[in-house]
Amino acid sequence: PAVSPAAERLRYILGEDDEPPNPTVFTEMDTLQHDGEEMEWKESARWIKFEEKVEEGGERWSKPHVSTLSLHSLFELRTCLQTGTVLLDLDGYSLPQIIDDVIEKQIEDGLLKPELREKISYVLLRKHRHQTKKPIHRSLADIGKSVSSNTSESLGSNLCLAASLSLRVWKRGGKAKFRQLLPSPPSSFQQLKNKFIKKIPKDAEASNVLVGEVEFLEKPFVAFVRLLQATMLGGVTEVPVPTRFLFILLGPAGKAKSYNEIGRAIATLMVDDLFSDVAYRARDREDLIAGIDEFLDEVIVLPPGEWDPNIRIEPPKKVPSAEKSAGGGGGGSDDGEMPEVHEIGEELAWTGRFCGGLYLDIKRKLPWFPSDFYEGFHIQSISAILFIYLGCITNAITFGGLLGDATDNYQGVMESFLGTAMAGSMFCLFAGQPLIILSSTGPILIFEKLLFDFSKGNGIDYMEFRLWIGLHSALQCLILVATDASFIIKYITRFTEEGFSTLISFIFIYDAIKKMIGAFKYYPINSDFKPDYVTMYKCECIAPDPAPVAPNTTNMSLYNAINLTALDWTQLSKKECLKYGGSLVGKSCKFVPDLALMSFILFFGTYSMTLTLKKFKFSRYFPTKLRKLISDFSIFMSILMFVGLDVLFGLNTPKLQVPTDFKPTRVDRGWFVFPFGKNPWWVYLASALPALLVTILIFMDQQITAVIVNRKEHKLRVSGDSSHAQGHSIASGTACTPASTRFWGADGVLLQGTGGRGSPRLGTLCKAGARPFLCKLEQRVTGIIVFVLTGISVFLAPILKYIPMPVLYGVFLYMGVASLNGIQFWDRCKLFLMPAKHQPDYVFLRHVPLRRIHLFTLVQIVCLAILWILKSTVAAIIFPVMILALILVRRLLDFVFSQHDLAWIDNIIPEKEKKKEDDKKKKKK
Amino acid sequence: PAVSPAAERLRYILGEDDEPPNPTVFTEMDTLQHDGEEMEWKESARWIKFEEKVEEGGERWSKPHVSTLSLHSLFELRTCLQTGTVLLDLDGYSLPQIIDDVIEKQIEDGLLKPELREKISYVLLRKHRHQTKKPIHRSLADIGKSVSSNTSESLGSNLCLAASLSLRVWKRGGKAKFRQLLPSPPSSFQQLKNKFIKKIPKDAEASNVLVGEVEFLEKPFVAFVRLLQATMLGGVTEVPVPTRFLFILLGPAGKAKSYNEIGRAIATLMVDDLFSDVAYRARDREDLIAGIDEFLDEVIVLPPGEWDPNIRIEPPKKVPSAEKSAGGGGGGSDDGEMPEVHEIGEELAWTGRFCGGLYLDIKRKLPWFPSDFYEGFHIQSISAILFIYLGCITNAITFGGLLGDATDNYQGVMESFLGTAMAGSMFCLFAGQPLIILSSTGPILIFEKLLFDFSKGNGIDYMEFRLWIGLHSALQCLILVATDASFIIKYITRFTEEGFSTLISFIFIYDAIKKMIGAFKYYPINSDFKPDYVTMYKCECIAPDPAPVAPNTTNMSLYNAINLTALDWTQLSKKECLKYGGSLVGKSCKFVPDLALMSFILFFGTYSMTLTLKKFKFSRYFPTKLRKLISDFSIFMSILMFVGLDVLFGLNTPKLQVPTDFKPTRVDRGWFVFPFGKNPWWVYLASALPALLVTILIFMDQQITAVIVNRKEHKLRVSGDSSHAQGHSIASGTACTPASTRFWGADGVLLQGTGGRGSPRLGTLCKAGARPFLCKLEQRVTGIIVFVLTGISVFLAPILKYIPMPVLYGVFLYMGVASLNGIQFWDRCKLFLMPAKHQPDYVFLRHVPLRRIHLFTLVQIVCLAILWILKSTVAAIIFPVMILALILVRRLLDFVFSQHDLAWIDNIIPEKEKKKEDDKKKKKK
Repeated sequence: PAVSPAAERLRYILGEDDEPPNPTVFTEMDTLQHDGEEMEWKESARWIKFEEKVEEGGERWSKPHVSTLSLHSLFELRTCLQTGTVLLDLDGYSLPQIIDDVIEKQIEDGLLKPELREKISYVLLRKHRHQTKKPIHRSLADIGKSVSSNTSESLGSNLCLAASLSLRVWKRGGKAKFRQLLPSPPSSFQQLKNKFIKKIPKDAEASNVLVGEVEFLEKPFVAFVRLLQATMLGGVTEVPVPTRFLFILLGPAGKAKSYNEIGRAIATLMVDDLFSDVAYRARDREDLIAGIDEFLDEVIVLPPGEWDPNIRIEPPKKVPSAEKSAGGGGGGSDDGEMPEVHEIGEELAWTGRFCGGLYLDIKRKLPWFPSDFYEGFHIQSISAILFIYLGCITNAITFGGLLGDATDNYQGVMESFLGTAMAGSMFCLFAGQPLIILSSTGPILIFEKLLFDFSKGNGIDYMEFRLWIGLHSALQCLILVATDASFIIKYITRFTEEGFSTLISFIFIYDAIKKMIGAFKYYPINSDFKPDYVTMYKCECIAPDPAPVAPNTTNMSLYNAINLTALDWTQLSKKECLKYGGSLVGKSCKFVPDLALMSFILFFGTYSMTLTLKKFKFSRYFPTKLRKLISDFSIFMSILMFVGLDVLFGLNTPKLQVPTDFKPTRVDRGWFVFPFGKNPWWVYLASALPALLVTILIFMDQQITAVIVNRKEHKLRVSGDSSHAQGHSIASGTACTPASTRFWGADGVLLQGTGGRGSPRLGTLCKAGARPFLCKLEQRVTGIIVFVLTGISVFLAPILKYIPMPVLYGVFLYMGVASLNGIQFWDRCKLFLMPAKHQPDYVFLRHVPLRRIHLFTLVQIVCLAILWILKSTVAAIIFPVMILALILVRRLLDFVFSQHDLAWIDNIIPEKEKKKEDDKKKKKK
Repeated sequence: PAVSPAAERLRYILGEDDEPPNPTVFTEMDTLQHDGEEMEWKESARWIKFEEKVEEGGERWSKPHVSTLSLHSLFELRTCLQTGTVLLDLDGYSLPQIIDDVIEKQIEDGLLKPELREKISYVLLRKHRHQTKKPIHRSLADIGKSVSSNTSESLGSNLCLAASLSLRVWKRGGKAKFRQLLPSPPSSFQQLKNKFIKKIPKDAEASNVLVGEVEFLEKPFVAFVRLLQATMLGGVTEVPVPTRFLFILLGPAGKAKSYNEIGRAIATLMVDDLFSDVAYRARDREDLIAGIDEFLDEVIVLPPGEWDPNIRIEPPKKVPSAEKSAGGGGGGSDDGEMPEVHEIGEELAWTGRFCGGLYLDIKRKLPWFPSDFYEGFHIQSISAILFIYLGCITNAITFGGLLGDATDNYQGVMESFLGTAMAGSMFCLFAGQPLIILSSTGPILIFEKLLFDFSKGNGIDYMEFRLWIGLHSALQCLILVATDASFIIKYITRFTEEGFSTLISFIFIYDAIKKMIGAFKYYPINSDFKPDYVTMYKCECIAPDPAPVAPNTTNMSLYNAINLTALDWTQLSKKECLKYGGSLVGKSCKFVPDLALMSFILFFGTYSMTLTLKKFKFSRYFPTKLRKLISDFSIFMSILMFVGLDVLFGLNTPKLQVPTDFKPTRVDRGWFVFPFGKNPWWVYLASALPALLVTILIFMDQQITAVIVNRKEHKLRVSGDSSHAQGHSIASGTACTPASTRFWGADGVLLQGTGGRGSPRLGTLCKAGARPFLCKLEQRVTGIIVFVLTGISVFLAPILKYIPMPVLYGVFLYMGVASLNGIQFWDRCKLFLMPAKHQPDYVFLRHVPLRRIHLFTLVQIVCLAILWILKSTVAAIIFPVMILALILVRRLLDFVFSQHDLAWIDNIIPEKEKKKEDDKKKKKK
């Protein structure tokens, strides 16, 4: 009730909203230092928004921290302002003149004895010394000098002379001369070279706080001055910022600490949003007092017994805005907290028109098309390109190999390469979401295998059949796009999305580890080896028994030309020996030394080094820029490092093998497939059915990726305002991409590559781990370079052959693990292992009982387990349908969990009612 | 100035120091919940010292945090206490009666209309519901129940009945009956099973804060009650703690949040040290108001624009004591900071009497002798014993082996074992500092080697010479002890000590890595191996050319018995082949597969796993106890894990080899050495000279260890008050130990083992890394067990032989790295790599300019480098003298650095003047 008049007053003076906002205030506090007879003003702290203190002994600035004041000092300040001199809108142009006016006013008001005029003036015009950064290595020069001598050294006698000169000049009333005299060149120079100015906004004005104790005063000399115009006062401020406010507190000796606290209080007030407005607009002393009262009313109080004022509180990440109503203090009022909203931009709404969404997408995206290109040329791109490229070719190679096996080499590694390259480039050029890595996924592999077996079994020409499925699938995708089917994205909540993300992380981790374990099987270790009995270990190629050769002549006909008996069997390699029918005898035949362990070291080393380097960004060492560089290039550096290690050891570890010849994998197929002639006509129509499965697969993949990539928390800086448009355009893009591939086929260029489908992997990987270097790159250049590189990989083989596979597996393991980190589901899984009191202060934990959270997590785990099992069996072909099932499970959870709980741990599925209402509205129109 | 009367008042009521301290206050705040017509009091927060809030939605307690209040609410509380009812020393025994008295008083004072009596009483007697921990898995049972139904379920109708019954009973004035009626069994049961009671001190008394809004009031109903006797008020408090204070605030509807804040304010006040004293002793309302004013005066204030009140501030590690004068608030006033004092206990002072120090040490230490034993039986000891034991035997083996080489097996592994065991047990039993690992150090090895070469070259009997050196050294040590020479410890400041500690850490790290690299040389890897050409790799033993056998017959005479031609050369092992003069031919002879890489995996794996497990203590997973256990046993578990891995692979990695027979290493020496007869008489005297070197070495080692171990920051809980006595007694102990070993020799039992000298390693390692599990064990049991184990290692060989050496090297690497972490010198080295603004807020950085710190660090680095170079050369023998030189360098630094700087980054060397003064005083006596 006591503050009501104050609030009333402030409402009056701050009410005029039409005025321009006040400049930012920078405050510098200088304290008076005595050194015998000499005096000087020494900067002791400064405020932009938070306080930085001069560490006296350390000769350095402290880190910015929250100003913890004592309430006592605030009250004392209030008294000071009540009793002291307040000069508002003083027309001052130089410090001596201002000081003179202040003293004059004090004498006028009977606050100061006239005989002290000169003494006060002398004190206030002492030189100001600022804490400027000194070179670190100056130290080597001044060994032997004690610190105390250091402190006083800058008090030159000429300064006193200058001051007394200025005093004399002022007495003559030569105000005009002062303008030239006072802003002394040395201080200006020091001001200009002070790099701190960069941190101060350009429009800022300074407020100078001067506090000190002097012998000759019996009661404090207090003045608060606001200048009519912000004026440069020479060397008073450490940076060349014009001064608007001046607070002076000189008091009798003995209470320096108290003065200091009052100075800190007014300095803190001056940088307070509200009070600085008040200070700019105050009409009189009472307005200032009202400002303090209002400040006091909103102040946050820490009990003395629970906090040590010497602890410096780091600035919080988020500070409440000035508009927020006060009075709601208290460590528990979470009224401000609101669950995240499942945000769906209007670009994902159902337009109701044919091709409406596609049209809007293109309209929205087109203006950003050029910038997508020129923004791509950035140093960070190199690391991203490398990773995506390695990911693409590794995938193309492994997948191509497997597919070649499955389809009798109709689709092999070479086709895989070309398909990835061509479809990928198209996608990057025209799709809305150029960020996606294009690669094939497990279900596709199984689908292709089943398809090939079916064709073979039923006498259908596989190549032609496959072409038609592609054409149908492209058509179906186009229909989905044209009918705005991507509105289904609304039903993909965090539940579905995180399940999918986690699954993909697990696939990464599982594959990496599986392949690593494979190395131990492929290169068995001879665990019985005793170094001393090295003489016992050999592997000899024994010529086949001559007796059975005679009946086997038919088999051996190929080698008839070679005289088997003339062959030196001991000189044959393992493969040759077996080829010519020899047998390997010896203890060391089965074993391969060193390779398995070396592979493990490369694998685990790459993984841990990437992890360590990525974290390096948060260490304290080296400047921020260098750290960021190291962190951004962590994958690149780890690969380089362990490729180097591998080269050093020179072991024959498995390397990345890229085909070196540009030709179809199978001799009896060409690059082009003619769509007609080999199959009966009904096959052309029937292929629509398998195509439907492919369509669903592609569509679901893309939809989920779109949700993941567009989540706010992934902080994707998509170029332009059309960020949410991407979700839709990805659907269009996807549809177009396979379409384009297939249409080329129709034009006579059928790429039987398995590329052309965007995998959501990168989207997932953009979380936590990979974000810093991958996800700022929503532009087209990276992608195009990657796919061009993929295309010419055939020629890069000499370089790529140095990369050991275990190193790549290590990178994959890292990507899998890192991408798990950003997933809330994973955080919730961890909660199972944490005792309640050690759990982090997640917002959802404050609002949802732990057991409900655990239940939700359990449901997700079960769903994931089912998906995992499905993925590993032949049922993988219905995998896309399972994701639809996940959406259904989520809908069912609406009956188990309250909407309040779901709002916090998941998102709320939009109500049907609301949609109906929207429909109604449309009808009315 | 306004608070002066308040302070005056408080000084009066708190001045009586003879009264016993007041009990700790536990505060519980309950808020009134409306659910339609029903009402109940629901616990919303509690305070022991810090606030814990009930997270409504999460149904859990928040973590304890500092109560951030709004100043506004404190002022409102002040008004409340000024206008409301204050009843001090009310004789209450039940809640209804207390409430009745309060209402009566309010009506009496005209604050409450009489007709509201029953309504207020009804509200205040509603059931109290506490936030009790619910089992997590209850959730599975109540799927389908919405949270909202949950909230209201505990409001049973019988509670209202009970309340109205009590109301009726009370009206009849049946106060006596209430005593049986009110403390209802169910709430008591809930109270008793609440584990939270463990955290409340036994003598605690409760203060209950009840706030709520009701429809029927027009102005607030406020009451502050202090009971004459703390009384159990049934289910009002969540734990069975008697209530002493009661604060009630009921107000008109619409301002619940404001009431809540006032409730938090009084609750926070009640747990404040000063205010709770005031509340206990207040004579009237004015005293309470004065308490608030005093609280307000000391309060710490955060500006509203710089802090978000929703952020929960974690309790600080250290809270200022109540005695500390207030008013010094402000995030920068480091007036409270003082440099650490180089603390030297009186037990290290120069007594000036012969054997004075030794006598005092024994006197001080004797009372703790028994507890040193029985305190040793603790689970943590197992891990410590394992580590120390493994350290001892590894050292004994490697060192014994090297020494055996150096002395022609006069002192070998077996002697090393026995020496360590016997001298170590003696040391543990009688020395003042039983914590030390006894083992030999590098300089000793070099000394022994030089000594042996000298003896051999000059025809002196080594064994006898060595015995006499031991005897002399023991005598010299005794003299040092008797003359209180350990006063030199004063001159060992942080500078010397940290140099030494770092050096030892480096030795650990260097040795571990050197040995690891050795494995790659010992087991060369065949980097040209191609798996396919396995047939090309063999190693055959070729019989020597028969021609040269004839001239060499003399050499071959030993093997004449064997018919060399009859030998199956292909069946010989590598060693045998070379032994019989055969030659090894083949590509694989030089190489050993897998072992080097496996060794590396074991080495690095053990190191990283130990590091990870040790850090596990700070993770959030699992209960604290389990985490601590894992952390304590990290070394043990890592060793187990990697021994298991090694067994799994079954590779022939180098294992720990312990001798299995108990006999002197050299056949021509017995266990005992007779001191006379083999050398000329002057050798007995001359051996005093080399003995002097040994003495200095031992003495300096021990002195530095004493300083390191006794530093306050190592937080060694040495049994009893005589903690600082250890420093001296270690000197005595050391002296005694070699002495005892030698005297045994004089008695005819000369142990030519190399044990008997305490290495300061463990002392160093007690820092950071090893502290938690090693350094709480300042007792004698561990040490004795270790040395007994060492003694019987001969019989433990079957178990120990499973431990691969690389695993042990991994542990050593860990110990080296971990011990670096606690050293300030190392922290300062890191500063070189950090930009100033990222540097941690070390205290010394606040007080000493960075360039001075860097200079100091550079000096240390140079000293260290010189020590390191010396250590690696033959000059190692003067190593002990170098440490004396380090003390000298430190003295010289006094001329380069100011005493102020040194006080912060080092310690101040005690002035000579002071000593002279002491001497003068003594003379006067």
